[in-house]
Formats: sequence, C-alpha cells, structure tokens
Amino acid sequence: MKAVVYRGPRDVSVDTVPDARIERPTDAIVRMTTTNICGSDLHMYEGRTSFEKGQVFGHENMGQVVEVGAGVDRVKKGDWVCLPFNIGCGFCENCERGLTGFCLTCNPGTAGAAYGFAGMGPYQGGQAELLRVPYADFNCLALPEDAEEKQDDYVMLSDIFPTGWHATELAGLLPGETVTIFGAGPVGLMAAHSAAIKGASRVFVVDSHDDRLKLAESLGATPIDMRRCDPVTEILGQTDGRGTDRGCECVGYQCCDRHGQEANDYTMNSLVAVTKATGGIGVIGVFLPADPGAKQELAKQGKMAFDFGAFWFKGQQIRTGQANVKAYNRRLRNLIHAGKAKPSAIISHRLGLQDAPDAYKHFDDRDKGWTKVVLKPAA
Amino acid sequence: MKAVVYRGPRDVSVDTVPDARIERPTDAIVRMTTTNICGSDLHMYEGRTSFEKGQVFGHENMGQVVEVGAGVDRVKKGDWVCLPFNIGCGFCENCERGLTGFCLTCNPGTAGAAYGFAGMGPYQGGQAELLRVPYADFNCLALPEDAEEKQDDYVMLSDIFPTGWHATELAGLLPGETVTIFGAGPVGLMAAHSAAIKGASRVFVVDSHDDRLKLAESLGATPIDMRRCDPVTEILGQTDGRGTDRGCECVGYQCCDRHGQEANDYTMNSLVAVTKATGGIGVIGVFLPADPGAKQELAKQGKMAFDFGAFWFKGQQIRTGQANVKAYNRRLRNLIHAGKAKPSAIISHRLGLQDAPDAYKHFDDRDKGWTKVVLKPAA
Amino acid sequence: MKAVVYRGPRDVSVDTVPDARIERPTDAIVRMTTTNICGSDLHMYEGRTSFEKGQVFGHENMGQVVEVGAGVDRVKKGDWVCLPFNIGCGFCENCERGLTGFCLTCNPGTAGAAYGFAGMGPYQGGQAELLRVPYADFNCLALPEDAEEKQDDYVMLSDIFPTGWHATELAGLLPGETVTIFGAGPVGLMAAHSAAIKGASRVFVVDSHDDRLKLAESLGATPIDMRRCDPVTEILGQTDGRGTDRGCECVGYQCCDRHGQEANDYTMNSLVAVTKATGGIGVIGVFLPADPGAKQELAKQGKMAFDFGAFWFKGQQIRTGQANVKAYNRRLRNLIHAGKAKPSAIISHRLGLQDAPDAYKHFDDRDKGWTKVVLKPAA
Amino acid sequence: MKAVVYRGPRDVSVDTVPDARIERPTDAIVRMTTTNICGSDLHMYEGRTSFEKGQVFGHENMGQVVEVGAGVDRVKKGDWVCLPFNIGCGFCENCERGLTGFCLTCNPGTAGAAYGFAGMGPYQGGQAELLRVPYADFNCLALPEDAEEKQDDYVMLSDIFPTGWHATELAGLLPGETVTIFGAGPVGLMAAHSAAIKGASRVFVVDSHDDRLKLAESLGATPIDMRRCDPVTEILGQTDGRGTDRGCECVGYQCCDRHGQEANDYTMNSLVAVTKATGGIGVIGVFLPADPGAKQELAKQGKMAFDFGAFWFKGQQIRTGQANVKAYNRRLRNLIHAGKAKPSAIISHRLGLQDAPDAYKHFDDRDKGWTKVVLKPAA
Repeated sequence: MKAVVYRGPRDVSVDTVPDARIERPTDAIVRMTTTNICGSDLHMYEGRTSFEKGQVFGHENMGQVVEVGAGVDRVKKGDWVCLPFNIGCGFCENCERGLTGFCLTCNPGTAGAAYGFAGMGPYQGGQAELLRVPYADFNCLALPEDAEEKQDDYVMLSDIFPTGWHATELAGLLPGETVTIFGAGPVGLMAAHSAAIKGASRVFVVDSHDDRLKLAESLGATPIDMRRCDPVTEILGQTDGRGTDRGCECVGYQCCDRHGQEANDYTMNSLVAVTKATGGIGVIGVFLPADPGAKQELAKQGKMAFDFGAFWFKGQQIRTGQANVKAYNRRLRNLIHAGKAKPSAIISHRLGLQDAPDAYKHFDDRDKGWTKVVLKPAA
Repeated sequence: MKAVVYRGPRDVSVDTVPDARIERPTDAIVRMTTTNICGSDLHMYEGRTSFEKGQVFGHENMGQVVEVGAGVDRVKKGDWVCLPFNIGCGFCENCERGLTGFCLTCNPGTAGAAYGFAGMGPYQGGQAELLRVPYADFNCLALPEDAEEKQDDYVMLSDIFPTGWHATELAGLLPGETVTIFGAGPVGLMAAHSAAIKGASRVFVVDSHDDRLKLAESLGATPIDMRRCDPVTEILGQTDGRGTDRGCECVGYQCCDRHGQEANDYTMNSLVAVTKATGGIGVIGVFLPADPGAKQELAKQGKMAFDFGAFWFKGQQIRTGQANVKAYNRRLRNLIHAGKAKPSAIISHRLGLQDAPDAYKHFDDRDKGWTKVVLKPAA
Repeated sequence: MKAVVYRGPRDVSVDTVPDARIERPTDAIVRMTTTNICGSDLHMYEGRTSFEKGQVFGHENMGQVVEVGAGVDRVKKGDWVCLPFNIGCGFCENCERGLTGFCLTCNPGTAGAAYGFAGMGPYQGGQAELLRVPYADFNCLALPEDAEEKQDDYVMLSDIFPTGWHATELAGLLPGETVTIFGAGPVGLMAAHSAAIKGASRVFVVDSHDDRLKLAESLGATPIDMRRCDPVTEILGQTDGRGTDRGCECVGYQCCDRHGQEANDYTMNSLVAVTKATGGIGVIGVFLPADPGAKQELAKQGKMAFDFGAFWFKGQQIRTGQANVKAYNRRLRNLIHAGKAKPSAIISHRLGLQDAPDAYKHFDDRDKGWTKVVLKPAA
Repeated sequence: MKAVVYRGPRDVSVDTVPDARIERPTDAIVRMTTTNICGSDLHMYEGRTSFEKGQVFGHENMGQVVEVGAGVDRVKKGDWVCLPFNIGCGFCENCERGLTGFCLTCNPGTAGAAYGFAGMGPYQGGQAELLRVPYADFNCLALPEDAEEKQDDYVMLSDIFPTGWHATELAGLLPGETVTIFGAGPVGLMAAHSAAIKGASRVFVVDSHDDRLKLAESLGATPIDMRRCDPVTEILGQTDGRGTDRGCECVGYQCCDRHGQEANDYTMNSLVAVTKATGGIGVIGVFLPADPGAKQELAKQGKMAFDFGAFWFKGQQIRTGQANVKAYNRRLRNLIHAGKAKPSAIISHRLGLQDAPDAYKHFDDRDKGWTKVVLKPAA
C-alpha cells in the first residue's frame, strides 16, 4: 500500500509499504478516506523526536472498515468509522474510567498510545491507504449515514475537535462564563468553536497571525493580537479588571513571548494573570518532561519558571493532558450530524496522498494560509 | 479587654485594648473561650509580613455570643459558636458559590479576608477576650449542646481541620484510594485524619520530625521520614512503582529539601513524581506572589522551577487555595459530635492568654513537643 | 402605592395600599419597572389555594432601588436590580449550598419563601409600585448599563428563564445530547431556549397548543403535537427507538393526557417511557403534597400511579424542585448582556398596572395568543 | 462438570452438565472457588420468573482462571479473579461511561446482562465447577496475593458489597451526613458498612428481623425495629424533626409494611418522609416493570402509589438501578486488601456445592440465622 513515510529530518516520501493486516483477533483494518496533517506531526518531521526512519505518519484518521478479526463483535466490514488518535484497550484502570488518553495497556511502561507518533507505541500511522486498528470494537466510532458526505467534519473527531473541547472541559467552562484561549492554531480554534457551542458569554483568542485571528473571529470569538497589545492588560481592560472565568492553553512548550522569543512560561503565566481568582485553566498544549533542544536551561529539564505564588494566592486550578477523545466523540458527532458544529471550517487544503511531501514543507514553513491540511488517500 | 498584641518582630505582649464592639447592624460580639496559635501566625511574629504593630493576633476562634447587632436574625446571645478564619459576606459572587475563602466584599481589592492576619483586611484577631464578627449570621457556626465540653475539638473547625480536609478535597481523594501528604504539621496531620475518615486505603505522611511522624502514625498513616530516605523512591517502592492516586501539599513556600535547604519547588516536584498519571494534587500550604526575603531568585518573585513537563505528560491536575471553611464545617462538626472525628488529638499545650508571649517563643523556636497551642482567654 | 390585590376567586383589582417600607436593617425598597404575570399566579387567582384576600400578587419582579436599610452594604439607591422569586436568607444550611429555593429562615416551618405566593411566607408581591426586598444584599441581582433598555429580557431572570434552565440542569443535559420537554408554556419554552444555548443536539417539545408549538419551533426545537400523535411513539420513532438522553417535566400536577383529561401521571410516565435507560429526568412543573380539589383519588392525596418498575429497571434518575434562581441568574444575565439569550421572545403583551384585572381574565381563560404578560407599574 | 441446576419451582439439584468452554476469542474459563447464593436467586427458585429449567444458578462468583481465548491480552491462566455479576462488553455507549450494569451489547434488546439470571441473557451461572466469562479482559477483576486467603471477602466484590456501596452513591451520601437505610438483608448491611467507611456521621437501618438488626448494629449502625415503632416517626424524632440527609432503598418490590402486608410503596414513601428537603434517595432494591403475581392492582402493572407531591415539594432526587460493579470494585478491593473493609462479616454458612439444594430451602424459608450462604465448588 502507499503511505507517507518518514525518511529523516524534513524528509518524507510516499512509498509502497506492506499492507496493514489483522495481527490480533480484536483488530480491524480500515481503508483511509481522509487523514490530516497535524501540528504535532511537525515535531517529528523536524527530527526533534525519537520518531524512527521508516515509520508512517498520521494520527487523525477516518475511513471504511475492510476487514475485522475473529474477536470483533460490533464493527462490521463496510462501516464508516473515525479513529481517536489515542489507542485504548478499554479494560485497564484508566480506560474503564474514560481516561483513554492514558491507556496502561497499549504502550507498556507509559500511559497513552497513538498511531504514528514518537514515544506512543509501535503503531503505524494512517497517512496511508490502510490502517490497522487495535481493539477495534473499543476504538472505532461509528458514523451515521452522512459519513461520506461530511468526512471533512467527521475526521476532526479523531483529534482536534475533541482536543479543543477538552481544553474547555479541563478549564471547567460553564455556560454564560468568559474564557481566554491562548493560541489560534487548529486546536485553539476548535476550543473557541467548543466554547461558543457550550454557551460561553465571551471568548477571547490570543495569537499573532492575521489569518488565524480572522478565523477565530469568524467562529464568534474576540481576537486579541499579541503583536499589537499586551494580551493580559487588554483582556483585563475588557473585563472590568476582573479577568475571565476560565483560561485555555493551546500552544505548548514551544510558545513564544510577545517579542517572538521562545519562553515556555509565557502562556501559563499570562493565563494565571488573566484568569480570575478561583478560576480554572485547562492545558492541552503539549509540554515535555525534557526538551534537550531548548535554549533555556529550565526548559531543557522540562521545568518552567511558573508563577506558583500568584496561582496559589488566587486559588486557581490547572488540569492538563491529552484529550480522552472517546469521552466526547459520540456527542460531538451528534452535533456535526445535527448541523450544530462545523469543524471543517478551518480547513485550508484538501490534497491527495501524493501531495503530502509538498504539504509538509509548506505547513512546516508556516506558509501563509496553510492552516489545516486534509489528505485523501482513497481519491 | 486583654489581647495578644504584635509589638514588632518576635515581640508580642498581652495588653489592654479597647473592647470589641458592634460596628455594623450585622455584627456580633463573641467572648473568646478557646483560640489557637497557628503556624501561619509565626510569619507575622517573625516580622516578615505587612502585619502592623498594635494589631491583635488570632484567626482560630470559638466562644459564646454576648451581643448581636440589630440586623442579626439567627445568632442569639448565649449561643456557642465557632468562627471560620476566613470572613465572608455571604452575598458576593464567590461566597454565594461557597468560595468563602475568596470573598470579594470583606477585603476590597483582593479576594479573601481573615481575623488578625497580614493582608487580609482590617479585622482584629481573637487572641483576646472579645471578638467582633462581621456578617454574624453568615459567619457563626452554631455548636451543639456539648460545645463547652468538646471545645478543644470544635475550635479546630475554625481552620486546621477544614483546611486539612480541603487538601484532600482539592486532591480529589475518593474512598479506597491512596494519598501522599507532604508535611505533618497541624494541617498535614488533619489532612491525614481527614483521609482516614473518608476511607482512604493507604495514607503516606512525609516529614522530618519524630514527634510529628509519631502523631501521623497514631492517626493511621504510614510515616515516611525524609531524613532517612528519599520519599519519592520510598513511596513508589511501596506502591509497585505506580505512585499514589492523590497528593497533598501541606507545607508551603518555606519548604525545605532533604538537606534542610529552603527549596520552594521541593514538595511540588516530589508530588508530581509520586502521584500517578491522571492523579490529582491539592495544595493548601501557603505560596506567595512575592517573597522578598527568600534566598533563591525565582522564589523572591513568587516563582517556582516547576516540573511542568512531567506534570502535563502525566495528565495530572492541581487545585489550590485557602480552605473555604464554611464548605465543610457543618459536616465536620457533626463528625465531632458523633465521636467520629477527634482533631484535638494533636494539641500539645493548653494555656492562659497571659502565657501567649512565652508560647509564641517556644512555638517559633520549634521546641520539641510544641505541636499545637490552645489559649483559654476566659479561664 | 398602587398594587394588584386579590379580592377573592377570579377577582383582582388595582388598589391603593400602604407603601412598602424598610422593616429590617437588611431590607431594600425597589421601585417596580417591570413585573410579570406567571402561570402559577392563576392557581391563586382561581381561589384554589390558601392565598388570602388583600394580598398583593407578583413574584417576577425587577426595578430600581429607592432605599436601603442600615445593614445593607452592597446595594445602593439607584441600582437596577432583578429579584429572584424565591427569597433566601443567605446563611441557612440550604442557602449556603446554593439551594436558595429551600431557604430554612424566610418561611419558618417549611423550606422556601417567595413574594406574593400562597404558602410561601408573609411577603407582598411586586405587581405594585414598590416592593420590599428582605436580605437585599443577598437577593438583589445587579444589572448592567443596558438594564433599562433590556428590561423585558432581564425581568425573566426572576423566574421563568432560570426555572427553564433548572429543568435542563436537573435532567443532567450535556452538550450534544437530546432532550424531550413536556409542556410549551413559558417555562417549557425557556427550557427549550436553555437546551439550545447549552448545545443540545436535538430538542423535542410536546404540547397541544398551536401558538406555543410555533414558539418552540422558532426557538430551534422540534414541536410534537400531542393532539395529532402519541408523543412517546413519535419521539421513539425519531430516535431509532432509543429515546432521548434526557427529559424535562414543565407542566405540573394539573397535566392532562392526550384526551384532555387531567391525569397527574401522564407526563411523568411518558417521560420514563421516552427517556433512555440511564437517562435523567428534571421536574420543575409543580406537584403538591395534597390537592383536595382533584378528581382522582390518588391525586387528592398528592400521590401518583407512577411507573416505578420501568423507572428502576431503566436505571433512570429524577431530580425535582423549584429553581434555585441565584444558582444561575448571574450567568444567564451575562448571556442576555452578550446578546446570546433573548427570553423576551415569548412575550405577547406589555401592559400598564391598571390593565392587570383584564389581563388576568384573558390569561386565565387561556385566550389565544396570551402567552406571557408583562406589566409596567412605572409607566 | 457439577452445577446447581434449576429443575422447576423450589426444585434445584446438583447435576453433571457440559463443561463451560471458550466460545469466543475474548472469553476466559474460570474455576469457581467461591460462589454465593443471593436473595435474588430466590425469585427464580420460587418460579416467579422466566428462568428456564436446566439453567445454572449463580451470579456472585470468584475463582482462578484455567483457560483464555486467543483475543484475551491481560488475563492469564492462574490469575485469581472476581467477576462482577453484570456482564459488560466494555465498548458500548453505556460501558464506556462506566454504566456497565446497562450494557447494550451482551443482552440485545435490553440494557444489562448477568450470569445465571432470568431475563439477563443466555449466560450460565457460577454455582458450578467452571464458569465461562465473556469479554474476559474487561470483566475479570484481578485479585492480589491474599486472594485465596480472603476469598470470603473478595467474593463479595461480585455483587453485594458494590451494590450496597452503590446505594450510598445513588443517594449522594457525603462524609459527615446522616442516612436512613430500609432493609437489613445482605445488601442493606453492605450499604451500612459502606456508609460507615465513607464517614457518615449517623446510619439508621430499618428492618423487622432480630438477627439482621443485630448485624447492622455490629457494623456501627443504629438499628430501627419497624415491628416496635413507626420508623419515620422514630428517625424524625432522633434527628430534631429534620430527617436524615440521605435515604437508601435496599428491599425492592416485595417490601412489606409494618403489618407484614406486601405494599410496594411502603419503603419509598417512608423514605420521602424521612429524608430532608433537598436530600437524595438511592434505590437498589429491585422493582419490576410488571409483576403479574402481585396482589395489588397497581403493583401488577409495575406501578406504585408514590408520594410524588411531597417528593417534588421537598425538592428531593431519586437515583436508581442495579450497581455498575466495575465502577467501584477496584477501590473496594483495595479496602479489603488494606483491612479497612470486611464484608465477610455477614456470612452465616460456608457449604459445599452438593449442599446447595438444602441451602436454597433454608434460605427460601427465611430460617433464622441463614443470612448469607457461600458455596465452595472446589472444596
């Protein structure tokens, strides 16, 4: 089958690799119809991770089932399914409580597995014609009769829509409350979309790119351009000095301050300052236990010069971690089906699998207008 | 009336001051029968805060009502009452949601007020013969018929018992779970007592003082002596490498590492390491937005070199802040009344008001055996 | 002052009564600018309650503060405020947990007080020029600068908007879920509005009046006309036989079956049938401990022939009771202010105080088009 | 293998039946070492259900794994395991939210499956030498090194201990609160044990059998003998007329009133009366959608003359349904392992499999002292 293969730093190619196949009775094989390039793919593309040459990219996947193992009871050949990026077993202590992002089975020795991802277990990605899905009955989200037609929306259920939603859940956002979101990349935009769906009274989105800020505004948010103002001062000013009820971190460890310098504490300390006393902060931007390539000494050790004193004094709370996709994907699917959510609004490019190398280059260069790339392996 | 008055660094005296009196129609005056010295009084005693000369100490108070204002409807003269250390109005946005530790009314410009406390508003303390209680109907906890007899238990409802309880609530502790508590001072011991009452299956308490560790053990906890082992390694070893489900920080910004050096990140980074992935950490040890007297540069700014990367990667959560005493004091009162909680177990000294100067000195010197001092102004 | 006074069954008049005045230091006096007639006023109007002759109607009130007592600290003369229909003290065991609909202080011997309401304490109503508000700091919701302009929206914060919202909270409705609402009176319509704001994926509203069903549809709901179909069969059919995730009862004890016969079990048994296994049902329609005027023997005793077996077997839950208005009114106010909620959409008549007798008659006769009447005492 | 087989009303025998065997790749076979007779087995024993002749009894099971299917990844031969009475798939909409008592897969057409139970799917029971466990990785609870030694405690994790715990969860019981439990059968006693472990301040248990009331008292509860007093009056009297914070129904549809007459509304209406306004009631006693053998007309239809008016007026809530065993069994296992729970305290008889017919007879006759029977097939 054809697949997008990692060849080394900034080098991917579309190669023929062995077909994905049933390895355990509980597996299914899915023919990929839509699979996205994610911002986190770029960390691996740039060679800053343990991702090995020869591995296949792709953790935002959907398609049609072509084969199931002898131990699969629910999923059938022909079903349209979307796959959560995190692979869960369904029976470990974390999965059984819905914490499928921290499965203790699928990636022994750590908590959490994923397709085509550095450090997340031996699973090939879905930027390919076929994908092997472990524990298929647990991991496949069944899609309704408009699955094919609304693929560009449903594929977002694999990662960025639930991840953006998770940011607002971790923050504890309630209807009628206000929220500040740092980062207007695909996940930050999905957090803004989620906040609007949930009935937030006001959503501020902070970023430094015009096209992203424009998208945020189109989703009903108030854009805050951090190049033109200090976002903390600005948002406090717009909220009678009180700050917002909640805050979301949607950038991660490579975040930059207003001057474009990497400063891993910038977003978090800004969120402590801009969130009201007793407020909650949700963090889905990725932070790593160690980042040897960082410039700052603390950052290399995975540490941050965090405003813990202010954080404690304000009685705030922080909740973190990758999204447990299955905690939300059924309900978000229903919102798409009912026409009340439209995550595809942020897609900038729909391309064939063979266009992946070119797309990776443009996306990595942050070329203007390349906000979200969707690949169509079956086309 | 007689009162314990701050005269300057390490200088307190028992002086005659003007009687507490009704200032607003919603006030009550309470004759103090029992009032404690708290570890946090020592920060003020040592002169490291903005506490002003002439102010009266004391935020752990109980006694009998002697007078009420014209706007007080529930509390009556003669009632035995215990007063939460945090003073709430009952009607601001935070109080009405039960977040009485962050009252927006009683200490304008910040969130949270208290009796006899630096930076917590213009309220005299209760280490005196009389105490003025604002918003008396809201702030007085009525005590049952055994109030006088069980004073040494009920007085703990003013602060340390609910604060220890709060640590376990912030951590999200459920029955059957395990928890690590850093700090076996009065609050850490109350956290251990609370965890046992709630049905924790195992409670580890980390400290470096023999008498405190012994008290922890007597409350059903497993004592971990950080002078003799690395507590993280030790507890991971006792939990199959998995760590505990929850963690509680009951030390605060002046915490020391295993070598006795002040290291404001020691307890928090240890808790991130010893708490399982997806676990929760509750922080009731005090951390300050700025600590000019600290030695470390980050600590001076109220910052901490926090293991944010490990924290995020493990998908943990931190909840912080002073206890909202009123959220728990009715139920904890009922446990004392029913004989199912006995917080007085940690009291080491019961003294008269006139003994306060001497008690402050011993307590500040960490003299052996001075774990908890209770004063009896009415005796 | 002028006020709408009860004179006996189906007899109200606009009379001159003594001015409302400060009785306790914690009181405020509010000049009524907008006050609504509520469906529950009709029970008293019809003479089927203990409402006494000479009492003033009106529990849905807003206006401007004209005087405050000596013990009032927050509310000031000139403030625009909306008053929750339930009067709370702010300090009893229920109020301090946010259960202000069950205040133990304001109506001794029972739980819950209200303005101008049978059995809810000695408080005059607000269909008058002035209203006395007890515990003013606790009970007055401050309104923003557009208070006067958006009065017809903000007045709904006194009762029907939070009550409709409460129905969806009691039902446990989550974003993306489906819900069935029985009753499209003002509260049922507000429940539908609330469900839409919260991101329900589908909202079914069952009623038997054309004008109400049309309003439900205009709020984004799917109207189900119980005159033309069995609502249980119809909704099961539209949900693949699965039923909706949640159900709301917004009718109460005088509900009728499909043939127009009073049957106090009709809505509840229908909701058990139409709600999925493990689903939740919220009940804000009023049910009484005794209803001597009922025709059915069980109903007279306040009992219902309830399908408890099916309810248990499906593992459902029911939560009940009048809305704790203060639990929601700040956030709903913010939604109105931000233009994201518009409860005034259901108003059919805006009249002067002197028009009240005529309005009561039309409303009681269920005259077509009289969905919601708003009175303007200050006009 | 030997098994306890249903032969018809009040007729069971120990017969040789075909060995349990792997039928699907996700199955395991467990050698039964301990298996209990449950009160709900008696409904089938008495012939009042659809239980078919030839079926094997037993849904409270534990033992040692002897074989696993090709799709089983976690469970291994030799593991000691306890099996929840409800069989879940782990991947349906209910199982993935932890509602394993309402699995939509294992018993198509209804919600919920179990071993050896009328109407709960085609699964043989465990009162036998071997048991087939579907979805073994999901359904087997691993037991620690003291599994064999503490079998009589661990076997209670299959049903009655989590079911009693569930009653207190459904009721919303918090530490320091009070609770009334109707029924001191094995499940009611486990509810009392659970309430004590969770830190209830007072637990009332209502029953009419001396031996049961004595057991309740030995578990720390206050026994209320309904033969000697009206339990509602008595408990209101002991709680200042306020009632308890919570209530638990642990009897079910065959409950009797004080005069020993079957009255399916007796326990529920008593609980509404004895529970405080705003309190919660948890119902784990079984109620059926239809009970053709009942004497009362409403009961035949699965209906109850329920005090809905009082229930609504008090703003109470009811939560129902069989226990989702997997929601609690890990934590309760840890409590047993730590010596903080001892559910075996209520066992009255430990017998061999061959003694089952005799035991059923004694148990069904409610012979004095036959509170809980444990069978040892492997002995």
